[in-house]
Amino acid sequence: MSQDLFQEIFQPGFSNPFLDEVHDGAILDMGGQKLAFSTDSFVVNPIFFPGGNIGDLAINGTVNDIAMCGADPKYLSAGFILEEGYPLESLKTIVESMKNAAANAEVALVTGDTKVVEKGGVDGVFINTSGIGLVRQGVEISPKRAEVGDIVLINGRIADHGIAVMTKRQGLEFESAVITDCASLNKMIGALLDVVEDVHVLRDPTRGGIAATLNEIATAANAGIELFEDQIPLDDQVKAISSLLGLDPLYIANEGKVLVIVKETDADKALNTMKSFDEGRESSAIGRVVEKNAGKVILETSIGTRRIVDMPSGEQLPRIC
Amino acid sequence: MSQDLFQEIFQPGFSNPFLDEVHDGAILDMGGQKLAFSTDSFVVNPIFFPGGNIGDLAINGTVNDIAMCGADPKYLSAGFILEEGYPLESLKTIVESMKNAAANAEVALVTGDTKVVEKGGVDGVFINTSGIGLVRQGVEISPKRAEVGDIVLINGRIADHGIAVMTKRQGLEFESAVITDCASLNKMIGALLDVVEDVHVLRDPTRGGIAATLNEIATAANAGIELFEDQIPLDDQVKAISSLLGLDPLYIANEGKVLVIVKETDADKALNTMKSFDEGRESSAIGRVVEKNAGKVILETSIGTRRIVDMPSGEQLPRIC
Repeated sequence: MSQDLFQEIFQPGFSNPFLDEVHDGAILDMGGQKLAFSTDSFVVNPIFFPGGNIGDLAINGTVNDIAMCGADPKYLSAGFILEEGYPLESLKTIVESMKNAAANAEVALVTGDTKVVEKGGVDGVFINTSGIGLVRQGVEISPKRAEVGDIVLINGRIADHGIAVMTKRQGLEFESAVITDCASLNKMIGALLDVVEDVHVLRDPTRGGIAATLNEIATAANAGIELFEDQIPLDDQVKAISSLLGLDPLYIANEGKVLVIVKETDADKALNTMKSFDEGRESSAIGRVVEKNAGKVILETSIGTRRIVDMPSGEQLPRIC
Repeated sequence: MSQDLFQEIFQPGFSNPFLDEVHDGAILDMGGQKLAFSTDSFVVNPIFFPGGNIGDLAINGTVNDIAMCGADPKYLSAGFILEEGYPLESLKTIVESMKNAAANAEVALVTGDTKVVEKGGVDGVFINTSGIGLVRQGVEISPKRAEVGDIVLINGRIADHGIAVMTKRQGLEFESAVITDCASLNKMIGALLDVVEDVHVLRDPTRGGIAATLNEIATAANAGIELFEDQIPLDDQVKAISSLLGLDPLYIANEGKVLVIVKETDADKALNTMKSFDEGRESSAIGRVVEKNAGKVILETSIGTRRIVDMPSGEQLPRIC
């Protein structure tokens, strides 16, 4: 629904910089400086889930969106919508998580707003974070820049976030050791941009998983993307739970992952840099940009068959972030 | 509740620039540029009310918050939280209002996000807007700068917004000709800053009305503020409805008003500039900063008595913006 809403209703109301690029944030000129500006509302359900809560999610999500623009995130805002009577102890824990996540990402939470809504007017707590960062000179990150021959990298296991949240969903609770991958990626990406001069694409595969994000890139670049199933890091338990729930991990949300697309000659350097960070220890080259099947994502399975990975048609897991 | 939440829970989690000034936005350094950055979530109920809707409210609210920092608003983000099944026609009208309000204020809506929540998870539509603007060189706007002898100006009638919304509240509907004063003030304020070199304070008296805002200023400046009741512009119908509902217009929300505090020698110049704009046609000098009663707001009534205008202890009208 969100995708359709955007194209039919929101896009006509928004200005050019946003129209031209389907991006995680807008790149703006501000008195001669290039800034990245991004916003995201968080409605995750449940609010607390294994390994995190809505608070660190809200910080890391916006930090990462800005990092995906090739910018160094600096300042964040936070807007809270609270249900009347929401336990103050829970709220304190959420704010504490935000503080820690901000400190860890080295961003400052500088302005905020709170609205309290009567019971039933909202489901617990929603948080909007917006952020601004300075775009690095010379970088030109865009999904359009995926070029034939480029290598697709990811910084670790997919689908952990979606599965962690699902295991705590009402009516579905079950025990598992899976925790969210929620993390800020700006330091790793900063190091990557220091080392690899010409990074082509950076995108975080959140809602809709790597399937949605790679489809968007394939469409924007008008190129095909081939994925190698056996190169995609995936936890055994996540694989088992996904299978049990009838979900495909390629479509499940991540919160601390980035898809990096670079020239083949830069791939090793990029991979080694990413692996030197905790959040990139299990980085892997998972695919390649090809001429064939322009606009499509093709998975080469571990048993040697090939299948199209379609754009998800609806939201598989609502309220996952 | 919001005030307490802020002090007890949010403030300890936020960074210095936000802590130091109780402001509508944060003033930031961004590669040598001074930027204003502000965020606001809108949960107004009903979503459509006489003279406006949540859409223009969300644009003008953030435009004004940035203007209050002595900055020229440039770019806005919009984050939508929608209830599943919310009528698309209504949503289109809201987005159209946002587009028009943005065009009118000459700001660009550059980045956005939409989350859809299941029925009952949210009450219709909530919108968060964040914005950035360039702070004008040499301006130093702060509630602390209200100085003894300064004059307090307002750009027109108070309490229209709150009353307009109330007349459409479920269970309370009644006919009236009162419409919201919702408007962007950045052009008028820009002209004011062009003409008056040293504007001391700019604040928009939204939630809690001019009573709450003037109390905040009196506290920040550690000075008294005397108000002259017969100088405060107030529509007869608004006065009658407020009286009927047992509400004090001083405490009722405005959406297109600004309290301007300047040196006495600048007051006429400021007033004339404000009056040259539609949104300031009924501007009036309504009070004065005094040494006595530091931290307090005193109203001299039209019948010559004096009373303390306290800080509102709770939210008189929830979901007014």
